[in-house]
This record gives sequence, structure tokens and C-alpha cells, in this order.
Amino acid sequence: MLNVAIVGASGYTGLELIRILHCHPEVAVTCLTSEQSAGRKISDVFPSLRGRCDLLLENLEPVRVAEKADLIFTALPHKAAMEVVPTFLKLGKKVIDLSADYRLSDPAVYGEWYEPHLNPANLKKAVYGLPEIRRAKIKGAKLVANPGCYPTSIILGLAPLLKKGLIHPHSIIADSASGVTGAGRAAKVDSLYCEVNEGYRAYGVGGVHRHTPEIEQELSLLAGEPLQITFTPHLVPMDRGILSTVYAAPLKELTTAQLVRLFEEFYDGEPFVRVLPQGCLPSTAFVRGSNFCDIAPLVDARTGRIIIVSAIDNLVKGASGQAVQNMNLLCGFPETTGLDGLALFP
Amino acid sequence: MLNVAIVGASGYTGLELIRILHCHPEVAVTCLTSEQSAGRKISDVFPSLRGRCDLLLENLEPVRVAEKADLIFTALPHKAAMEVVPTFLKLGKKVIDLSADYRLSDPAVYGEWYEPHLNPANLKKAVYGLPEIRRAKIKGAKLVANPGCYPTSIILGLAPLLKKGLIHPHSIIADSASGVTGAGRAAKVDSLYCEVNEGYRAYGVGGVHRHTPEIEQELSLLAGEPLQITFTPHLVPMDRGILSTVYAAPLKELTTAQLVRLFEEFYDGEPFVRVLPQGCLPSTAFVRGSNFCDIAPLVDARTGRIIIVSAIDNLVKGASGQAVQNMNLLCGFPETTGLDGLALFP
Amino acid sequence: MLNVAIVGASGYTGLELIRILHCHPEVAVTCLTSEQSAGRKISDVFPSLRGRCDLLLENLEPVRVAEKADLIFTALPHKAAMEVVPTFLKLGKKVIDLSADYRLSDPAVYGEWYEPHLNPANLKKAVYGLPEIRRAKIKGAKLVANPGCYPTSIILGLAPLLKKGLIHPHSIIADSASGVTGAGRAAKVDSLYCEVNEGYRAYGVGGVHRHTPEIEQELSLLAGEPLQITFTPHLVPMDRGILSTVYAAPLKELTTAQLVRLFEEFYDGEPFVRVLPQGCLPSTAFVRGSNFCDIAPLVDARTGRIIIVSAIDNLVKGASGQAVQNMNLLCGFPETTGLDGLALFP
Amino acid sequence: MLNVAIVGASGYTGLELIRILHCHPEVAVTCLTSEQSAGRKISDVFPSLRGRCDLLLENLEPVRVAEKADLIFTALPHKAAMEVVPTFLKLGKKVIDLSADYRLSDPAVYGEWYEPHLNPANLKKAVYGLPEIRRAKIKGAKLVANPGCYPTSIILGLAPLLKKGLIHPHSIIADSASGVTGAGRAAKVDSLYCEVNEGYRAYGVGGVHRHTPEIEQELSLLAGEPLQITFTPHLVPMDRGILSTVYAAPLKELTTAQLVRLFEEFYDGEPFVRVLPQGCLPSTAFVRGSNFCDIAPLVDARTGRIIIVSAIDNLVKGASGQAVQNMNLLCGFPETTGLDGLALFP
Repeated sequence: MLNVAIVGASGYTGLELIRILHCHPEVAVTCLTSEQSAGRKISDVFPSLRGRCDLLLENLEPVRVAEKADLIFTALPHKAAMEVVPTFLKLGKKVIDLSADYRLSDPAVYGEWYEPHLNPANLKKAVYGLPEIRRAKIKGAKLVANPGCYPTSIILGLAPLLKKGLIHPHSIIADSASGVTGAGRAAKVDSLYCEVNEGYRAYGVGGVHRHTPEIEQELSLLAGEPLQITFTPHLVPMDRGILSTVYAAPLKELTTAQLVRLFEEFYDGEPFVRVLPQGCLPSTAFVRGSNFCDIAPLVDARTGRIIIVSAIDNLVKGASGQAVQNMNLLCGFPETTGLDGLALFP
Repeated sequence: MLNVAIVGASGYTGLELIRILHCHPEVAVTCLTSEQSAGRKISDVFPSLRGRCDLLLENLEPVRVAEKADLIFTALPHKAAMEVVPTFLKLGKKVIDLSADYRLSDPAVYGEWYEPHLNPANLKKAVYGLPEIRRAKIKGAKLVANPGCYPTSIILGLAPLLKKGLIHPHSIIADSASGVTGAGRAAKVDSLYCEVNEGYRAYGVGGVHRHTPEIEQELSLLAGEPLQITFTPHLVPMDRGILSTVYAAPLKELTTAQLVRLFEEFYDGEPFVRVLPQGCLPSTAFVRGSNFCDIAPLVDARTGRIIIVSAIDNLVKGASGQAVQNMNLLCGFPETTGLDGLALFP
Repeated sequence: MLNVAIVGASGYTGLELIRILHCHPEVAVTCLTSEQSAGRKISDVFPSLRGRCDLLLENLEPVRVAEKADLIFTALPHKAAMEVVPTFLKLGKKVIDLSADYRLSDPAVYGEWYEPHLNPANLKKAVYGLPEIRRAKIKGAKLVANPGCYPTSIILGLAPLLKKGLIHPHSIIADSASGVTGAGRAAKVDSLYCEVNEGYRAYGVGGVHRHTPEIEQELSLLAGEPLQITFTPHLVPMDRGILSTVYAAPLKELTTAQLVRLFEEFYDGEPFVRVLPQGCLPSTAFVRGSNFCDIAPLVDARTGRIIIVSAIDNLVKGASGQAVQNMNLLCGFPETTGLDGLALFP
Repeated sequence: MLNVAIVGASGYTGLELIRILHCHPEVAVTCLTSEQSAGRKISDVFPSLRGRCDLLLENLEPVRVAEKADLIFTALPHKAAMEVVPTFLKLGKKVIDLSADYRLSDPAVYGEWYEPHLNPANLKKAVYGLPEIRRAKIKGAKLVANPGCYPTSIILGLAPLLKKGLIHPHSIIADSASGVTGAGRAAKVDSLYCEVNEGYRAYGVGGVHRHTPEIEQELSLLAGEPLQITFTPHLVPMDRGILSTVYAAPLKELTTAQLVRLFEEFYDGEPFVRVLPQGCLPSTAFVRGSNFCDIAPLVDARTGRIIIVSAIDNLVKGASGQAVQNMNLLCGFPETTGLDGLALFP
């Protein structure tokens, strides 16, 4: 039995970790921390847990947390994560960090988009935890940087094309939309029900969203050359889900059928990527609560552009589900353990 | 391994059975039928299932279905169920019927609210499948009449009070609200997104909703005398969930604390009923996707009335989850098998 | 042209006043105040107003406000209203107060449910602004206490019955549900999109909601004797709307047809009350954005209970629309001026 | 007083015409037709109208309709419109057609995307009714082809750039999202509440949506050369609204500030186009129920791409509001008459 701690348990990704791990046969959640709600039971914060997980939320004292757990999920805001992760690593714990702190391999890039990096030493040890792209490295990692939600949907959508050199690297436009859980659980007017409901809007337009460098880093690695993209996020009045519609210019002429075959081969055997047959398109509704990424690649025959549509649940494959998948790889459990659940539809 | 068929698999309760049984270690789903979509794969109807359950939907030929399964869930409209259930029973199969056809023990009452009953013989053998009230009988049953969604929420909310004779049997008013899955998956203008969204309304007001006699039958049995209630259903713009707010006049003075204790004792050991501590109230959001019924009993100190608020997921504890709970009882599996999943929140 | 100020303009009822008054031919909005957003343009707070109402939000300095306006709408939280209303009145201004501060005629009752009343002197001058019940008095008033949203829906639903002595005054149960604008625009976790969406819940159960004494005061006046009710509010995942389902025991036997006729006669000529024909039921969707109150009275023939279902838009007939209706009465404008707009459906 | 008929009144655009015209001082709605609901009152179909518009719905007999009206709005599906419009024109009536039948000036293109055109003669007389682009021609028209919803949002977003020759005509990608009213009011499983809610998806991907040739026709005219675009529509779980995010490659380097100034000049004096200041982005929530088109043009400084975000209410500026704007131009009423209403937010 693996003892696991969740640091930052009173946010939505923390809750989702608890939900998923509750059905994981190899894991016991032994410690939960929360700065805002320390001293309360997690089931008082999230009554959905009542009777199944009633642990007390603790203050975040890294050494105490490390005493209770073999592996630690850090579900903290950026900066807060890199303040505690070094301690966990020093004490020999494995860490899966759901923040942005260890995703950008170059601390200068982190500094440009966030603030000066506090822990560049461990940056080098961190493995970017997208199993479909970097499974082998994850298996031996001590520190996994769990990918962002938008990046997961976009990178999985483009990996086969960039890896095979089929698209012009500078032609990529990623138009994405997210449910509101992506904005977290902080009390802000902008996230109030009546501000969000019945409205659809773009935000962070023009290359300013902080997921941009993360996406570009990984796409550049896949392409084998540095590239830049245009990335536009939107907010959808729904709880969960990210759908990305990605446009690119092909380097040679392709049909939709060829594209589908290419993607099927690339993702052959992957337990959580479903390449949809020609004529089918993904919806966030069909992956809600599950760890799937559904992908439909196609060609706009009139203009020749390639279009990839991919959908995930931002809290599962885009955060906590992928974190558990990484944990399974790290710990030698079968990769799908605890992640078998089907989407909740409707 | 128990082979199971789902008759009427292309509706929401059919899909929910597939979702729940997918994680049930003792069961194999071997046959799915659908009148509208026979010949298609279930995963083409519900893309959430793709790659996990891709069975072909068959026409409903009872003998063929019975050949493939030991136990059959009938998730059909009323009348359609009692047209096939007798064949299943005759062939020695166990049946859990999710329709209304075997819930009313008196065929005359069925005739009054629906139409003439076609199969009164089997009515006597049917057990009303509310485990918290009738667990022993369910264990030995051949035919379980799975309760309606509104009835489940209301009966569980009133059982402790009626059993102990604490309320006036003729004082009961049940004001309930349901998500839109309760209306099924038929293509009707009234169920269109834009007709339902951003609106809240009552329907079937004035004692005309067909769940009324089912509720009264079970409450009368609990009370030990015939009673009638006022039941008002409402439609809420959300997918899942039923919340019932039930009013009754006490026969003796009680405090909220006493009520809570009474309910805790009554439901002590029940795996799927959570009596909330004083000061907490249920929400459908906290049971979504789970088999829980959350109940808060309290007293309006100013008027003396007792108020019970209870919440379930109408597709789980109100339909398919309860059906699996009944299957577990019928087949000797631990009662919670396959039903451990926590609610999906948000 | 009447110059009008809106004090507390950056909340939802303030915005709704601006929206309605924008099409009122006799009124100019000359002053808006906001404690949180003073110095910003109202159209920066609410971009829906851009290009049509771009006034600067001011700090609330009562004397300056009074200089700019003949009539003042106070859309403030309780207590904040009674801190400024006396100044406005002293300076000879007419005031329509949308808070709870002048609704309860007995300051002791106010003290019991809120806190000690700061301005009992003006309480006596305040007229409870429900035009259908108290039109004559409103016309001559200096200070109108604009009714609460729940009270409006419940009082209009019961007035004909209580006035005619047709129901038992102590039998009333009001089960109501509100959209989320009812919770205001404060940044609270409980009002976040993901906390509210896809959930339905009761709150303030057991006679503790502060609208209770307001409802009881007005119903008691209508009944001619003091009465108490059981009132249960619920929260619906939608922006706007209140629907109340009210139960009462009749003092003599009545049919639905008789009830409908009675209500039609009682509300004959009322521009904003629509008594629905037998067989029709209201929905909040059909009054959204309009000043209507739709009412369906009926009898549950099986139990004999009377059931009234009434629906309003909580921000219009339940707040700002009713306030404009009161302004029209106060100022001698035709009562429906500015309130002709049809509901926005869908 | 202008007598007006609405042919196809029981759909959402028909209802929206009634709602808008109800507050238009120069117009009387004298005739409503509906194939499905003829013989019923429009207020029985749409209870929001009760007491304000209770006209009987008639069968569509063109000559009878023409007798009752000076101007006719045809809110029919494509093909059905061109079956009756010739009769109306022959009888000397003005027609504003909300279908696609007269939008494409080349009948061969219509034939390619829809079916053989039945009335090419009148095609030549039809004026594409986008007032901001073609106001002068609309004033003298007998037949106005009211633009589609997606095209309105995209053409208004690109007109200044194409007119000034600032972007590469073949670089345009339009990524749009619509509320569910865009799918109409037909009873289809795909439009059911539970199928749409909590899901976001693309549809008609790859240059197959029928609005594509309409958009291309108008953009080509603006550019002065034939062009093709990539257009991807998405479905958002909300009632109303379209937001388009449009990407293009600039022909010379521009800053966001320059773009905003260019758009402000281009749309100077336009009553219904709001160019947002730098730093602001549109939301469908801020135009809901109003005739505005909100536009934010900006430059992605990192990649050099131009991005235009534009938002409308698909039923107002995208259909019925624009139709009334066209009627005002055609009939010599002030252009904004009946269209002054502010957006309903929240």
C-alpha cells in the first residue's frame, strides 16, 4: 500500500485526486493539507466526500507531511509549489507537482512568464509528465511536472504531425475553450455563477496566456526546432472540459483518411487516447470525469488546412487523472489502475 | 461471472447501467437491446463508451436475450416492460425492472393511473426494490420492481418517522425537483435545451403525477394505514438529481437534534444513506454520479412542522445504481460492489 | 424630465434599474454611486452598458446625490440604506428603498431578524410598495419600501384567498426557488459558477430566512389576523427567476375553475399579474426580463389542498421593475411606462 | 402605422421579431403564420407573450398574408422561403427574408451548397442586408436577404481590414461558437437539454458549414478579389450568442492601438457596432438581447498575427434585430427605432 499526501487538497484538483484515488486499490491517502481550511474535515469542505473520506485538513508543514507519505501530490498555486517541493525531494519522497513550477525546463523562460525561479536545481530533474510522449522517463523520475490542461489537449493533438514533420511549424493556431473549474475555486467576481453563465468569451488573447511557453516548449521538442504558436483560450459556461481546435498548414497534401490512419498508428496501444473515426467529432461531454483524450484529425479540402479537434476533462486528463497515471508509472502499478471509470454522461 | 443483459440500453438509465457495471468485478454485460438503434454499436449512440463498451445493439427478442444472460435489467417504458418480463421469468431468468410495471401491488391501482395491467400474475412475485426498507425480501426475489426516482427520495425521507408513528399520516406534502434526465431521451420540444435552460417550473401539479400512487403505497405500508399525500414535482435546469423537501405535522413535539438522532439510528449501517448533522443541508451536486441518498431532518421551531430534505442522483440511487444494489442483493455479492464511486463534484 | 439617482449601482438590482430606466421616456439617470467602484465608469463595471450609459460611479455622499436628483433609488444592503435614507428625506427627496430596512413596520421585529433599527421615525412613513395591494397609498408616499423578491411572489399568490377568507391562515407552506442573482454580486465561494451549477439545494430551512417576517406581516394584514407560515427557499442553477409553490388548507370546498375565476376577478385590470387559465402552469422562463407575475391557482382534488404556483423575475417584479412601477405611481406617470418589454425567451 | 406579417412565427427568430416589434412605435403586427401550430394562439405556443400578443397563428396562404401586411418577414427554413417570396413581391409587398434563400447572389453557388434555386430572377433584386456595409442599397430595396448569424459576426470583424487591404485574403481562419438557439426549435435528440448541457463541441468542421459561401461572398467583395476561408463553428451550452475569433496574417506591421483606431474610424457613427478599447474583450453575455456587435481587434505581438474577436446575440443582430434594422432603413424610420433596449445581464 502506497501512502500518499495531497498538498492543497481544498481546491478542485485536490478534490479530484481524492475522488480518483478513492477507487485505487494500491493507494491510501494519509494526509491532506489546506491553508484556508486547516482544522476542518475535508468532507465539511466538500460534502460529496462525507462518510468516505473524512480526514482532517492540516497546515502545510513539509516535514510532517513527508513523515506520513511515500509520494506527494502538490496541488498548489505556482510559486507555493516550489517552496515546498525541495524539502519533499530532500527527504526522499517522490513528488508529482500539478503547478506550473517545474514544467518549463529553462528557468529564464519561467522568469519571463511568472517570476524568478526559486529552485532551478530541481528543474533539471523534473520530467514533463505527458505519458504518451515521455513514458520511459516518467518511470524513473523522482519529480514529475504534471502538464497543464490546455497544453495536454494541444500537444496530444499535434504530436503525430510534428513528430513526422508533416506541418509547417510556424503555422500553428490553437483555439481552445475551457470549463470554469479551470479558473479554480478562489472567490472572485469574475467566476460568480451569474457572471459566467450564459456567456462565452475569449481571454488572454494575443499570446499572453501562461500556458503558451509550456505548449511551445513541448511542440518545439517534437518538431526538433523552436516554434511559436498563436494560442487563444475561451471560457465556456460549464464545469469541466477543454476542447482545442488546432489549425496548421501541411507540408505535403494529405487526406482526412490518411490523417486518421497516421494518428491511429501513433497512438496505437495508448489506453487513454481515442482517435475518432472519420466523420466523428469529440465533445467534452463524452470525456467528462474520465481520463480520455478524444482526437479527430481532418483536412479542410477547400483550403488545404489541417484541423485537429481534441477534448479532455481538464480536471482528469488535464490534471488529477494524468497525475494518477504518472503515479502509476512511477510506482510500477498498471498504468490504468484507478482510471477505468467511464465518463459521466449526461 | 454473472452474464447480464440490458433491455432498452439506448436510454439514459440503460447507459447508466453500462457505466456502473463497467466497474463491477463480478458482472459481464453480454447483451444490449434497443428498438430505435438496433444494428448500431452502443458506442456510436453514446460516444462516451467508445473503446470500453462497443457491443452491437440488438432487437428485443426475449428468447435470444435470455440465452445470453442470467439476469436481465429491463429499462423500458411502462407497458413495454410487462410485455417481455413474463418470458424472461418463465425461462428462469432473474429480472430487475426499472419501469413502473411491477411497482404497484394492486393491478387495479395500476389500471387507474396507467392502463390495464397485462401481467397481474407476476405482480405478486415482484418485490419493491428499496433495500433500506425491504432488504430481506429482495435477497430471495426473482423479480425486483426497481423504485421510481421521486419515490426513492421521499420514502427514504419519511420511513423513520412513519415507522415510529411520529407524524400525522395525512399531513404530508412532498415538494420535489428533478433534473432533466428524468424526462428521458425522447426528442420532444419540451425537453430542448432552450426550452428548459434558465427556467424553473412545476408540472403535474395537483395529484396527477404517476409516482403518486407508488409513494402512497409504500408510505401507507410504513404507516400501517392508508394515507394520501400532496406531491408536486418541479423541473430544474440541470442534468441529474432529485431533491425533495417534505413537510409533515408531528404527533408529538420534537427537536431537530432528536430527529437527527432518530434518523441516524434508523439508518445505522446503511451504506448509501447519509444522515446529515444538524446545520447541514443536502444538495444534488454532492450526490451526482453516486448511489447516496443524503437526508437532513429538521423542525421549524416557529410553526412546529417537521421538514425533511433529501437528495439523490435520479439516475443512480433513483434508478440504475439502486438496480445494481438490488442485483448485488439478489446474487449474493457484497451490497456495495460497483457502487463505491464518489460523486463527481463539480 | 425626472432626475433620478441610483445609490448602489454596481449590484445586480442597480444594473437592472439602469436597464429599465434607459427606455423610460420621463426619466434621466443623473447620478450613480458605488462604494467598491467609485471613480470607474459604470460601463467598465458592466460592459453591457457601453455607449448607452457611461456615467462615472461616485462615492456615496448623500447631500451631493440629493443635489442631482429628484428621486433616489437606494439599492444598498440592509443597514446601509437606513444610514442615508433619512438625509434624502430631510432634503425633500422621494426615496424608493430596495433594501429590507423599511419593510417591517414594527422596529422590534426588525431588531429580532436583523439588528436594532436606526431610523424608526421614518418607518411609519414608509409604504410597502406592492402596487396590487396598496396602490393608493403608494401614490402619496415619500418613502416606498420596495418588497422582497420571495415576498412578492408569495403575497400575490395568496392575496385573493386571504382577503376573501378562503384558507386556514395557519396552514400555509411556501416552497420557493430562486435563481442565483438573488444572492447578489459579492465574491463568495458559495456563489461561484462551479459550486452552484448542476446543483439544486434548499437553504435557510426551518423558519430562519429573513424574508419570513416580511411575508407574515403582509399576509397577516390580508388575513386580518396574525399568522405564521413555513417558508423554504431553494437555489436553482439559473440567473433569474423565482417560482413559489404555496400550499394551504381551504376553509370551504372549491374547484380549480372557481379558484381561477376568483383570481381573475381579484386581479382584473392589473397590468402585471397574469392569472393563467386552468391547465397552464407558470415558468420563470416566461417572465424573464419582464415585470409580470404569472399565477396558477389550483386544487389537489385528492387531498383537498389548494396549491398556488407563481413566477416572477426576481430582478424585475421582484426588485427593480417593481421599483420603477412604484416610481411611476409616485410621480404620476402611467403605471406601465418603461415596463412594456416582453420577456426574453429563450 | 406599418402593417407587418411574420411568416414562420413559431420558431425562435419569429418569436424574437414579435418581441422586438412589440416596442416599435411605427409598426403593428397583423398576421402570424405557422405550419405546425396554425389555429393556436401564439401565446399558447410562447406563454411569454400572453396578454401582450395573443394573435391566432394562420396557415401560410401567401395571398391572404399579403392582404394583411405592407411588409413581410419570412422566418422560414431555406427553400420554404423562396416558395412564397415571389408571390409577396408580385403583390407589391416588401420582404425581409431571414432564410438563406436570397443571400448568395450566384444561383450556381446556392445549388452547390443547398439545392437548385427556384427563384433566380429575384436573386438579382435581393440586397444583402448588412447595414454597416450596404446601407444605401438597403434603403431602396424591395427584397432584403437578412444575413446569417455567423456571417454577421465574421464580416463585421473583417470589413475594416479587407476594405483597407491590410490582411492577406487567403490567411483567414474564423473560429466561431454559438448558443443553442442557433439550432432552431425542431425536436431533435441532438438539441435535447441533456445532450447539449455541460458539453462543448465543434461541428461542421472542414469547410462544410453552409454559412461558408455566404461569408466568402461578402469577404471577397470587400477584398476586391475572390478568397476562401477556414470556418469552424462550435456549440456552446447557452441559449443565445455568437462569438467569433478570427485570425489573419497582416500585409504590413500594425499595433493593437493602430488597429483599434482603424476600427473606430471605420465604424464611427454606427449605432450598433461597439469597438472595444484596447484591453477589453467582448462576451456574448454583454450583448444578449441587444442589437450590438462588440468587436475587439488586436495583434499577437509574438507571432504577428491579427486576431479579431466579435460578439453578437445570434437572435438579434444575427437575425431578428438586424431584420428590424433593415425594415427601419427600408421604410424610412430612424434606424434604431425599436432597437434601443440594453442587453439583459445577467
